[in-house]
Amino acid sequence: MLIVRNARVATMTGAQAATGHAPLGLIEDGAVAWEGEKIVYVGPSAGAPRADDVIDARGRLVTPGFVDPHTHLIFAGDRAGEHAQRLAGATYLEIAARGGGIRSTVEATRAASDEALLESARQRRARMLRSGVTTVEVKTGYGLSVADELRLLGIALSLDGVVPTLLGLHAVPAGMDRARWVAQVVDELTPEAARLGARGCDAFLEQGAFTAAECRAALEAGARAGLVPHLHADQLTPGGGAQLAADVGCASADHLEQTSPEGIAALARAGTTAVLLPLAAFFLRQQAAQAGPFLQAGVPVALGSNLNPGSQRIESVSMLLAAGCLLSGLTPAQALWACTAGGARALRLDDRGVLSIGNRADLVIFSTSDPDHLPYHAGVEHAEVVVSGGVVRGALGTLVGDTRD
Amino acid sequence: MLIVRNARVATMTGAQAATGHAPLGLIEDGAVAWEGEKIVYVGPSAGAPRADDVIDARGRLVTPGFVDPHTHLIFAGDRAGEHAQRLAGATYLEIAARGGGIRSTVEATRAASDEALLESARQRRARMLRSGVTTVEVKTGYGLSVADELRLLGIALSLDGVVPTLLGLHAVPAGMDRARWVAQVVDELTPEAARLGARGCDAFLEQGAFTAAECRAALEAGARAGLVPHLHADQLTPGGGAQLAADVGCASADHLEQTSPEGIAALARAGTTAVLLPLAAFFLRQQAAQAGPFLQAGVPVALGSNLNPGSQRIESVSMLLAAGCLLSGLTPAQALWACTAGGARALRLDDRGVLSIGNRADLVIFSTSDPDHLPYHAGVEHAEVVVSGGVVRGALGTLVGDTRD
Repeated sequence: MLIVRNARVATMTGAQAATGHAPLGLIEDGAVAWEGEKIVYVGPSAGAPRADDVIDARGRLVTPGFVDPHTHLIFAGDRAGEHAQRLAGATYLEIAARGGGIRSTVEATRAASDEALLESARQRRARMLRSGVTTVEVKTGYGLSVADELRLLGIALSLDGVVPTLLGLHAVPAGMDRARWVAQVVDELTPEAARLGARGCDAFLEQGAFTAAECRAALEAGARAGLVPHLHADQLTPGGGAQLAADVGCASADHLEQTSPEGIAALARAGTTAVLLPLAAFFLRQQAAQAGPFLQAGVPVALGSNLNPGSQRIESVSMLLAAGCLLSGLTPAQALWACTAGGARALRLDDRGVLSIGNRADLVIFSTSDPDHLPYHAGVEHAEVVVSGGVVRGALGTLVGDTRD
Repeated sequence: MLIVRNARVATMTGAQAATGHAPLGLIEDGAVAWEGEKIVYVGPSAGAPRADDVIDARGRLVTPGFVDPHTHLIFAGDRAGEHAQRLAGATYLEIAARGGGIRSTVEATRAASDEALLESARQRRARMLRSGVTTVEVKTGYGLSVADELRLLGIALSLDGVVPTLLGLHAVPAGMDRARWVAQVVDELTPEAARLGARGCDAFLEQGAFTAAECRAALEAGARAGLVPHLHADQLTPGGGAQLAADVGCASADHLEQTSPEGIAALARAGTTAVLLPLAAFFLRQQAAQAGPFLQAGVPVALGSNLNPGSQRIESVSMLLAAGCLLSGLTPAQALWACTAGGARALRLDDRGVLSIGNRADLVIFSTSDPDHLPYHAGVEHAEVVVSGGVVRGALGTLVGDTRD
């Protein structure tokens, strides 16, 4: 048994909609103990069990490991040049005409070897883990053929701490009839992906991408195959995405920049989690979705990085927390809940995101005692020790420095 | 003699206003050599001199060390709680009534020991250096008495790679008549700060801070004492700050969110550098100053972090580059120029910011060959080896990983 003692333990057992620090479920002078992969104690240090190894947190903050519920982690091809063209004023159509856009990522990804894709994804995953992200959802979607999508799924399955999602309806494959691709996704790809171990399914509802009827068909096929459905909804245009996500019973609806009050009410009724992606709005110089209307309607709000090569390449957990606060209007406590309990809820993972007995031993010891410090002193990652599935990563027993300064 | 060979050398000798990559002054397969503190060669690897030690950059990007021309690096007192209050909807007046605002930093700074102030400033400075910032301007301004301001100046002077600026007119000291403080700054503080080694002087022109007449008196006193003048101008209200900065002959006018076309024209005529601080606008949820009108008028644009405990605590050079692009409208190449040659120009340091013979050997070897990659893949710091005054910091000879992925 291992134990962290003398910590400010943010269990995340509170309610996100409440004001102030309530979402954090703070235990002052608290302890978390685990045996193997599972938490066996959460409570005051005073009542904690004896353990073989003791980490003295010296009053610092402990939270559940972060859960990022929305990434496109596996890809080849750098699109920095395209980003620079956009900054210099090029339009989406001009960039596409020069060979940019999602199709360039699909081509580069198809051309890359398994080893190259795995190695670059591992590097990204490792940086996220060092910052405290113990669970990362990873979407396919840059394959756009049955074989290429299954290849990406296989790579996702070989990464540690990853929840793989089939994103068959991401774009229409070049030169293919869209109805044919939708039929392939529904009839072939989805059942095979479920059989191989995908956990979720997703679709991109947008003008220029797929229609509500097409997305419904793909998500219903996924649900029939036992996959947890998600939907890219209402990002650029209000397309009734939130209503569709609610209607299909999605675990999460993601983006939601353009969602109507009726859409928010539908999410609330369905118990669907809103995954906001404020760094994507920042990267694309658009208005981020505001958390307030979702929270007021009783919709839980999660934050996702949306890490991808085209529209969001900012890698920093503290910047995601900062963007959740500054761009989407969450308080620091609400943003921390969104990156832990909220992320787990968006993925229907009921064994993490909250520090409680029986849950996975995924937790972070920070270099500060103050939860408000993380989105404030952003751009510096404050995770000092990361525990993932009970395994301690970081300098156990050598907590040094206090980035509070 | 040391040399970096086989590098993409961005000398920053180009013009910022030009489009595309022109500002970078790129030398493909280039080399930079230095002897002691000074650069002795910049040019093609083929024509480079023989050196005692050779760093093979393997095609990666080399730039001048970054110059941050606007920070309030030395302070005590964390204001994360105040930031959280603001995010929860508290107004500036409510925060001030609860003891927040600049006065709380002044109190905490006055109460802190020299050792504590120096140690926290050293940690911040060390993080910046690791990210490639070889020169940091540091303002006083949290002392607000002659003795306390001189104490902060002394601490700034004891830090490496720091350019100290007297910011006497930052706020009116509590309980003091404002005219008396202005007179003390002009008559006592400024000459003494210049004698002790301050390099610049600055003032905060704003409603609620100081008037144009007061700022003019302080900056003219500074100029008489041989200090390089700067001005906090037009941040929250258009107060004719750019015109005053131009009129006094300031090296830089900083902030400039509200500057009029007439103000921009005045800066152009005076040769004053515009220091934009887009992360401060991000942190305060305001509109950042746009670089376009300044560049079109021929005003050089620099980027500063404005690192301070109240209104900008985001520490990340790559996020500053990203904000310069996404919020202030610079291209990646223009933003890199703004963080190197622009910063040096804003501080009237003609021995750095550009890689040329005789300049200080301040340079950065990045983990990528692509300048566009830095503001794109932001939130990850890409500096692999930092050379400051000829001293190599970082893993010489052990360049590992390519964060391009």
